[in-house]
Amino acid sequence: MGSEVRTEPRWLTPDELETWKTLQLVMSLLTGELGRQLQRDSNLSFLEYYVLAGLSDQPDHAMRLSQLAVLANSELSRLSHLMRRLEKRGLVRREPDPEDGRFTNAILTEAGYEELVKAAPGHVERVRQLVFDPLSETDQRALRRVLNKLLSGTLGEC
Amino acid sequence: MGSEVRTEPRWLTPDELETWKTLQLVMSLLTGELGRQLQRDSNLSFLEYYVLAGLSDQPDHAMRLSQLAVLANSELSRLSHLMRRLEKRGLVRREPDPEDGRFTNAILTEAGYEELVKAAPGHVERVRQLVFDPLSETDQRALRRVLNKLLSGTLGEC
Repeated sequence: MGSEVRTEPRWLTPDELETWKTLQLVMSLLTGELGRQLQRDSNLSFLEYYVLAGLSDQPDHAMRLSQLAVLANSELSRLSHLMRRLEKRGLVRREPDPEDGRFTNAILTEAGYEELVKAAPGHVERVRQLVFDPLSETDQRALRRVLNKLLSGTLGEC
Repeated sequence: MGSEVRTEPRWLTPDELETWKTLQLVMSLLTGELGRQLQRDSNLSFLEYYVLAGLSDQPDHAMRLSQLAVLANSELSRLSHLMRRLEKRGLVRREPDPEDGRFTNAILTEAGYEELVKAAPGHVERVRQLVFDPLSETDQRALRRVLNKLLSGTLGEC
C-alpha cells in the first residue's frame, strides 16, 4: 500500500457557493443581454464592440494586435478571426507596424469610428440600466473595492 | 426642419466607466482562466463543466433541455451542440421526458458523474484562489449584497 498524502480539497462553504453561483449568473446574464443588445442594434458582438472601443481609446486609433489580444483576453488566433470579420466590413484594417515590421497593427478606420459612435449611446444606456441604476454610491464603492482586491490577487497574474 | 426631440444619452461618469472597465476585466480574466484550467485538467469547457454540475444538483441527475438552457443562459441550438459533444463522450444522454414526450430530458450518466467528481477538486481550488482567498468576510458580504441588487434590477428580468 502506498503512503500517498491526499489533501482534502478546500471545498466552498454554503455561503461561498451561493456567492459563486450568483456571480456566475450575473456574469452570464450581463454578457448575454449586452451581447444581444449589441447584435440587435449594431450587428456587433460584445467582443467586437469592445475591440472597436479599445482602439478608439488609443491616440492614433491603432494598437499592436498582440496588445489588443491581451486587452481582449483573447487567443491571437481567435482575435485574427474577429479582425478579418471587422476588416471585411471596413471597420478596421491591419498593417505592419511602421516602427517594426515584425509586428502587425490593428487600426480603427473612419467608418469603424462612425459605427462605434452610432452604437455607443444605446449600449451605454443599457449598461447604465443593468449595472448602475440598481446600485447606490455606497454599493458602487464597495463593488470597486472588491473588484480591485480580486485584481490584486492571483487573478491579476492570469 | 423637423422638431425631433433627441435625448442626450446618460453617459457614464469617469468613476462609473472605471468600475465598468474593471468589472469587464474581472469577468473576462475569470472565465478565461477557469476555462483554461478546466480544459487543461479535465478536457471540459467552462460551460460543459457547469452543465454537468447543474445536472448533478438535480435529485435524479436529469433536467429538461429547455430548463437547462435557461440555467446555462444559452440558446437551445448552442446547448444542443454542446450536449452532442458530451453525449459522444458518454457523459450525458438525452431521452424523451417520460411524463410528456414532447420534451427532451438531459441526463447525467454514471461516467459523467465520475468525470465531474474527478474535475471538481481542482476546479473548486482554483475558484477559491481566484475569488475567495483575496476577499475578507466583509468583502464577501458586500459582493453578495451588490450582486443581489443587480439581480433585483433590470438584469433579473433578462
